[in-house]
Amino acid sequence: MNRIAAIAWLLCLCGGFAAIGHADEGMWTFDNLPLKEMQSQYQFTPSADWLAHVQHAALRSKDGCSAAFVSADGLVITNQHCIGECLASISTPKRDYTLDGFYAYTRDQELRCPQMEMEQLTDTHDVTAEVSKSLKGLSGDDYVDAFRSISSRLEQGCADGDTRRWSCEVVDLYHGGRYVLYKYRRYQDLRLVFTPEYAVAAFGGDPDNFNFPRYSLDVALLRAYDRDQPVKPEYLTLSTQAPREGELVFAAGNPGTSARGRTLAELTGLRDDDLTPALVYYSELRGLLEEYAHEGPDQRRMAYANLGEVDNLIKAHQGQLEALQDQAQLERKAADEKALHDWVMADPARRAEYGDPWSAIAAAEQRQHMLITRYRMLEQGWGFESRLFDYARLLVRGVEERDKANGRRLPEYRDANLPQVEQALFAETPVSADYEELMLGWSLSKLRETLGADDPLVRKLLGRDSPAQVARTAVDGTRLDSASYRKRMWSDVDFMEVSNDPLIVMAAKVDKDARAVRKQYEQEVLSVVRTQSEIIARARFARDGTGLYPDATFTLRLSYGQVQGWSEDDRKVPAFTDFGGLYGRATGSAPFALPPRWLAAEAQLPPATHLDFATTNDIVGGSSGSPVIDRDGKLVGLVFDGNIHSLGGDFWYDGGENRAVAVDDQALLMALRKVYGMTALADELVNGHL
Amino acid sequence: MNRIAAIAWLLCLCGGFAAIGHADEGMWTFDNLPLKEMQSQYQFTPSADWLAHVQHAALRSKDGCSAAFVSADGLVITNQHCIGECLASISTPKRDYTLDGFYAYTRDQELRCPQMEMEQLTDTHDVTAEVSKSLKGLSGDDYVDAFRSISSRLEQGCADGDTRRWSCEVVDLYHGGRYVLYKYRRYQDLRLVFTPEYAVAAFGGDPDNFNFPRYSLDVALLRAYDRDQPVKPEYLTLSTQAPREGELVFAAGNPGTSARGRTLAELTGLRDDDLTPALVYYSELRGLLEEYAHEGPDQRRMAYANLGEVDNLIKAHQGQLEALQDQAQLERKAADEKALHDWVMADPARRAEYGDPWSAIAAAEQRQHMLITRYRMLEQGWGFESRLFDYARLLVRGVEERDKANGRRLPEYRDANLPQVEQALFAETPVSADYEELMLGWSLSKLRETLGADDPLVRKLLGRDSPAQVARTAVDGTRLDSASYRKRMWSDVDFMEVSNDPLIVMAAKVDKDARAVRKQYEQEVLSVVRTQSEIIARARFARDGTGLYPDATFTLRLSYGQVQGWSEDDRKVPAFTDFGGLYGRATGSAPFALPPRWLAAEAQLPPATHLDFATTNDIVGGSSGSPVIDRDGKLVGLVFDGNIHSLGGDFWYDGGENRAVAVDDQALLMALRKVYGMTALADELVNGHL
Repeated sequence: MNRIAAIAWLLCLCGGFAAIGHADEGMWTFDNLPLKEMQSQYQFTPSADWLAHVQHAALRSKDGCSAAFVSADGLVITNQHCIGECLASISTPKRDYTLDGFYAYTRDQELRCPQMEMEQLTDTHDVTAEVSKSLKGLSGDDYVDAFRSISSRLEQGCADGDTRRWSCEVVDLYHGGRYVLYKYRRYQDLRLVFTPEYAVAAFGGDPDNFNFPRYSLDVALLRAYDRDQPVKPEYLTLSTQAPREGELVFAAGNPGTSARGRTLAELTGLRDDDLTPALVYYSELRGLLEEYAHEGPDQRRMAYANLGEVDNLIKAHQGQLEALQDQAQLERKAADEKALHDWVMADPARRAEYGDPWSAIAAAEQRQHMLITRYRMLEQGWGFESRLFDYARLLVRGVEERDKANGRRLPEYRDANLPQVEQALFAETPVSADYEELMLGWSLSKLRETLGADDPLVRKLLGRDSPAQVARTAVDGTRLDSASYRKRMWSDVDFMEVSNDPLIVMAAKVDKDARAVRKQYEQEVLSVVRTQSEIIARARFARDGTGLYPDATFTLRLSYGQVQGWSEDDRKVPAFTDFGGLYGRATGSAPFALPPRWLAAEAQLPPATHLDFATTNDIVGGSSGSPVIDRDGKLVGLVFDGNIHSLGGDFWYDGGENRAVAVDDQALLMALRKVYGMTALADELVNGHL
Repeated sequence: MNRIAAIAWLLCLCGGFAAIGHADEGMWTFDNLPLKEMQSQYQFTPSADWLAHVQHAALRSKDGCSAAFVSADGLVITNQHCIGECLASISTPKRDYTLDGFYAYTRDQELRCPQMEMEQLTDTHDVTAEVSKSLKGLSGDDYVDAFRSISSRLEQGCADGDTRRWSCEVVDLYHGGRYVLYKYRRYQDLRLVFTPEYAVAAFGGDPDNFNFPRYSLDVALLRAYDRDQPVKPEYLTLSTQAPREGELVFAAGNPGTSARGRTLAELTGLRDDDLTPALVYYSELRGLLEEYAHEGPDQRRMAYANLGEVDNLIKAHQGQLEALQDQAQLERKAADEKALHDWVMADPARRAEYGDPWSAIAAAEQRQHMLITRYRMLEQGWGFESRLFDYARLLVRGVEERDKANGRRLPEYRDANLPQVEQALFAETPVSADYEELMLGWSLSKLRETLGADDPLVRKLLGRDSPAQVARTAVDGTRLDSASYRKRMWSDVDFMEVSNDPLIVMAAKVDKDARAVRKQYEQEVLSVVRTQSEIIARARFARDGTGLYPDATFTLRLSYGQVQGWSEDDRKVPAFTDFGGLYGRATGSAPFALPPRWLAAEAQLPPATHLDFATTNDIVGGSSGSPVIDRDGKLVGLVFDGNIHSLGGDFWYDGGENRAVAVDDQALLMALRKVYGMTALADELVNGHL
């Protein structure tokens, strides 16, 4: 359902791990921290209690962000940009919460975010032995099936029948170096408490995104409920002190994916076959939405609810692409790869054990080049950018998949994941027919463009009509905008199977081809890269030993670093921005325009109070919403971005330039009191309870 | 004024030349044809008369296309897609000639294309000695200035004071291997006679562009006038026979640029710093225009007048980018480069003579990486996509440049080029304020995005306003939409200098920075690449001797080849399409919808009559509109495209797959008679006169 998640998945399946090359480098699992380095550099070693407390307060959002509990009454802090889907779905033609912000002065004013879910990591359990045994000697389809089957069995046992409460996931760390079963407590009733105006949350907009100095209050507060009562979690208390330059800080969050262990062939494939086409695709979509926003207030609302994500994707891809065009870094990578390759080849026993995984991966990348366009169009949603179509596909596949044994299903339809499918399907999310038509029509035209007008599937889908006509007919004729209708289809398979709903028909037409290319892609590319990466990982372990951190896997990690600016050419970029700078940068025009409330409050806000700050913490996408914690385990800020150099962080960490960017929590408190008059909420944050 | 031309220029200044690797390879100058190869492969050697006749009938359009005279009464044939600017400027809210086509049944119905110009090559003269002498020992600024000055002097002498009638140009062939003075007869009064509906000229639209089989009648006929009388030129007569498979055919046209002599560093730079950013930029513009087209009939007209060009740019860039991602080809290139490098280094005398031009070019490419964004935004028009702004810049620079000695001016303001500037400035071209606002606002937002909101020039231009506001104020307040106002400004410098026209003010604000980055780019990138490429060219000459063709320079070339399909994986692509195929492919929806006239005429058009055909001729962009000529010197077709593999032709020619795509002239005659009832025009084409 979520394009970012879909892309993250595309980027993430390869990987590996990396040796520490720089101070502050690393996205560490809680059980394997570089305690000696931390102690020697910062004279601090976190205690077991410190770690347990942080772990239990930290949260992961299903939308690809991080978050944390910040009060005994279930208050959750994350970024405004992490709740875009929620804001769009609770907004109405009359109330645009994305633009205007949201303010619950009392608990009964809190509004539920329909599809939001948070997960709290309660337990991890090493299952390397079981998984490795199941996979031994397998490859291709058998390997994928066996992994699915053992994961599914382990996950089901872990959730113990209560998949509404628990969610479990076998995570592959160090590429087959370790398999770990992660157990999460699920929170599916999250209600919005506060988020500022878009103009403040995203002050500076796309121009300032991935930049610093930065002046955004990119914060949202939600409250987690269980059976209509606020939950009572472990939580982080707010520090009363603003962080100082050079201070040691931690970020506890869920970095999504990184590729520090990838081979050169993978990085080249990523650059040419993933990043570049995605940039082109999203740039066209951006232009489309920018202009669509001018066509009326509803169009404006829909466009802006989605443009932020698109802008962000573009900039992230751009930054990564630029990193992968850096010949010097690529050569360093090549030298590192060659050294390991030579080490393997230098010894007949090693050669026999490891073979030549680099060539095998390069061949898989060639296959990827052939398959990826079709895979992306049919299976990754690029040809069908429509929420209604997503419903149709979930329904059509749901019928087929639920008929199979659990372990043989596509992962997203395994029993453990069905609650999430149902939540997506049954949520009462309003749908804009006009926007659906625009997006489906446009993406069908991309489908035709990339696969060609003569492609049999394209002919089957479009017949003699234009993409826009096909989209109009389908969106006009469907009843999938009704949650109850979808519910009936999901529960009454016969009802669905006789349906001639045009989107169900469309999804059914695509399904065989989409499944076929997915299977091919998984077998010929992903599983090859996966098994061969394991071999490289084993070789590296054998040569270098442990003391490494695994590539990011959208699971909980701790990074450490310090509050610090950096130097750019001859320019020194400071570590902090403040309210004075915000007002200095404000113009009357978006994205640098401040809302009236903020203009009125200028005299109340001390100019020297810090607003945002930069740190050397090693973060990547997915870390948005990570609490920034001081050595006392107190919250001092909230990660919401990285600078432009941090985008190369997917491939390597450069301590000289790579910076995380966070909101200072003192700025949040000040704004709640002086701008929004939300004193009770500010008190709850300071006191830790209502 | 013309974005394609601007980009062509960007791509073209490097280059070199290439050895023949394949039969049919080469874009040959008329004085250095591979006569032996032609004779041995096709048993044909063109006579001096044959060559002179073809040269005199061939034309070059200032818009970046090729064309030819096809009647004694000045009839000119080119592609419909080459006259987009004309169609947009003569269309009105009531008559959309792009969509509906244009049909002059009598001479008094012909309509003048305001800015169109055609040039006929009358003479070439080797000036290598003079130019080399002037450049000897110079580099950097001095080199550029000296080249400008000697070119300007030679060109002025050649035009002999009559720059309205003659246009002269010093062309650098083989990168300093030869300098040749080209003399053209100018035709500035071109009147539109016929072009079909857009739906027929661009049947299959963007999906079919750069593809084959293809079913387009991409043709336009114009008539050249001099003092209100049709000119009486040498011309090509139409063959009465349709071309057969395997038949020898020539294409006489002006391939724009190619880069077959470029170094690996240049190709990598082209890929990462030129093609990729351009793809991203134009993709966003494409999305914007696609949606803008929905906002009303005027918007639709303006969007479609420009979308074709944007789509085409995107596909061309895409094809080139894919070629430059081809690791095998790049390795072949690297090996070829290394061999020449090693040959130089193997001998101390050679090492002393040639040095290491490859490293020097690689360093210049690094500089390009730093400079190109600013250069493109400020100087190449990316930050100011507006016809009105283009006028303002021409006026502002015109004042400054005309004050200087001719040889010290920017090339576009030298005396020889002033008539073209004036033609552009004084043409009565209608301007859509709404469209200008859209484009200027959007491109200013790109300017801010790429240079950053804190860039001093960006601050100076935007102040506290948004890009859209700045564009609105400027377009609302300017009077540059009036040709007479522009004329007054051009001729009365005092009047202009006191002007507070907002676009003049904007252009003046930008000019210093734009000139500065242009100068830096020319000195640190272009002139280094140029002089170092010369050295490589000399080394290659020394090792391999002559018998080579120069890279394309948008000057007249002859290519030879045969009518032929190709094999794609297991699929055989035939050499021809026919009317039957056209009707079979037609649906009711754009871009596969046929206009009513064509639907009505179906029974009149024999299904087996050829419509388009593919040939092995070696062509690149700029060859559009090239006449396809048989061994008798008769016209058998008109090049309008290449297949997707032809896009790699900028870097290498692959005879197995690279194909030119042409309209069969028999299809044109048939359509004129049976669909449009333009019997007199068809007769003129067949008889060669009115």
